[in-house]
Amino acid sequence: MRVNGTSYQSIWVDDTTNEVAIIDQTLLPHAFAVRSLRDCADAAEAIRLMRVRGAPLIGVTAAYGVALALRSDASDTALVHARAELAQTRPTAVNLRYALDRMRTKLMPLPEKDRVHGAWQEAARLAREDVAANRAIGEHGLALLRALASERQRPLNVLTHCNAGWLATVDYGTALAPLYLAHDAGIPVHVWVSETRPRNQGLLTAWELAQHGVPHSLIADNAAGHLLARGSVDLVLVGADRVTRYGDVCNKIGTYLKALAAHRHGVPFYAAVPCSTIDWSITDPYGEIPIEERAADEVRNVAGHDARGERTTVALIDETTAVANPAFDITPHDLVRGLITERGIYPASEDGLARLRP
Amino acid sequence: MRVNGTSYQSIWVDDTTNEVAIIDQTLLPHAFAVRSLRDCADAAEAIRLMRVRGAPLIGVTAAYGVALALRSDASDTALVHARAELAQTRPTAVNLRYALDRMRTKLMPLPEKDRVHGAWQEAARLAREDVAANRAIGEHGLALLRALASERQRPLNVLTHCNAGWLATVDYGTALAPLYLAHDAGIPVHVWVSETRPRNQGLLTAWELAQHGVPHSLIADNAAGHLLARGSVDLVLVGADRVTRYGDVCNKIGTYLKALAAHRHGVPFYAAVPCSTIDWSITDPYGEIPIEERAADEVRNVAGHDARGERTTVALIDETTAVANPAFDITPHDLVRGLITERGIYPASEDGLARLRP
Repeated sequence: MRVNGTSYQSIWVDDTTNEVAIIDQTLLPHAFAVRSLRDCADAAEAIRLMRVRGAPLIGVTAAYGVALALRSDASDTALVHARAELAQTRPTAVNLRYALDRMRTKLMPLPEKDRVHGAWQEAARLAREDVAANRAIGEHGLALLRALASERQRPLNVLTHCNAGWLATVDYGTALAPLYLAHDAGIPVHVWVSETRPRNQGLLTAWELAQHGVPHSLIADNAAGHLLARGSVDLVLVGADRVTRYGDVCNKIGTYLKALAAHRHGVPFYAAVPCSTIDWSITDPYGEIPIEERAADEVRNVAGHDARGERTTVALIDETTAVANPAFDITPHDLVRGLITERGIYPASEDGLARLRP
Repeated sequence: MRVNGTSYQSIWVDDTTNEVAIIDQTLLPHAFAVRSLRDCADAAEAIRLMRVRGAPLIGVTAAYGVALALRSDASDTALVHARAELAQTRPTAVNLRYALDRMRTKLMPLPEKDRVHGAWQEAARLAREDVAANRAIGEHGLALLRALASERQRPLNVLTHCNAGWLATVDYGTALAPLYLAHDAGIPVHVWVSETRPRNQGLLTAWELAQHGVPHSLIADNAAGHLLARGSVDLVLVGADRVTRYGDVCNKIGTYLKALAAHRHGVPFYAAVPCSTIDWSITDPYGEIPIEERAADEVRNVAGHDARGERTTVALIDETTAVANPAFDITPHDLVRGLITERGIYPASEDGLARLRP
């Protein structure tokens, strides 16, 4: 996707230095900066500190982290160690485990001398697959938007939450891919961008949409119910960090509240995900999906630009105030109209998803 | 209520200067400052800029605004003008109109020479009534909390939204009054305090609760659904800016989302309101209650303490980004378990509220 007219992906290999380059998303939308990952620890740190975030991008970053680790030591022990270090960075998104499992399965059988090359190849393959999946998600979602737009005969209002755009993936995004393609196809869309406290990933969404010229409005997370109640939303479209075989959607905290309101007002709620986000092993989402509890300071503090244009963090409340900061919630499948995957749109039910089962 | 051990109400008359004193709530929780209102324009500004906020306190401030206006001119014209100036400050809370109607009804029949004295008296009466109503709301709510606590046999977790504490009223608060009384009665309560973007009135709630020693945790607005789903909330308790004869609750934006989640999980949702908050004239809440649309900068900017401890406003996003900022939403009565009023707890239905009808 484009940044000030230049094409970027959210992660790439710098062929001259053999380092992995990322866009430091903790600085966006205030500053655009590229950062190098030189070793596995850099990759793990980038995921943990959310320099990179979004389930698909976390997975690809971890894969590159394995490749970086093996450069200095390609032994079985090093591979196991790198996998463990990367796996513990964030607990909720299943794509991280998926990517690490793919790397292990591919690399373990190889002789040590071939592992580094194999790791770079497999990580690049994961990245390419992500781009292709998102492009396909975009096409399937585009058909849905096209159908809705022809019913409505006016610009479509789509509500999204968090950032499931190209910054959350390698390119295109999941939930935003259909919106980019619709905009490019001349279907008029307007996006309600939910701020997504405490980390404000909605600002990343607004930034992406602005770069691509897609009309949008920023709202406080609290406003979604009112917009749905007054008929200002035609579709709710989000990404996901993990989807169960039944179609339950684990996504950024606050998604569930939007799904409840969408359901109440008969507005379709879809999650756009690559099939790698479906965790077939989960039978009880509340019991089995670990919901990451993040640092209290994410709620206590907010970063922005001060009057001099400098990035500043301000404290909303003093550090003695207790905070709960769960990072994800679960939207039960009865609130989900469907899942937009790279293989098509499927109902959010065990039967509906059966054909996607590996 | 107490601030650093000293008793305060949120508004009072300074007998030496004959000015009205308020706590400037735009500076809280970062600084505690008292501000004088010298004339009607000061009162109108304080309401509009939310130096005072909360439906009951807005009403009382407007009543004092009328008294301040009549000091310089007690004519019919001045009274009508003051009423109009104050009525247009904020559209949604009905208490403002209620207080202004009370002042007009009381003062219009009086000869001009008696109006100033009459106005101070009536404003003070409104303030006293508010304190008494909130105290009674507290007692009725306390009985509810006591019953719940004896069922649970562990600390009660109560979720609230915005600030319906003593800062939103003259004293005690509406939704927080039962919690203060429960805490004082030795019933263990813990309050989930929803941040309440964009104005972050949850910080006022956290500050109040901390001053009174009531255990609480701050959460992002997005977290409420997850807390309700995982069984961490026993009761949702909020205030309201306007309630219809059917029991529909118009309150701070985001309330509706919490009510939807509470309903889904069978957790009782109550609004605590003085009877003056019930607007018997409304038959269609969506059509007839004006939902205030506030400035975009409230969403774009956030105020807090910088590293030097100075109050600083930071911009989250640049000013070209479009914003929607509705300040209230409507929770339909089927999601409301009951209304806690100064006259008791009533079901949220036309029949249930009939006995409160004037």
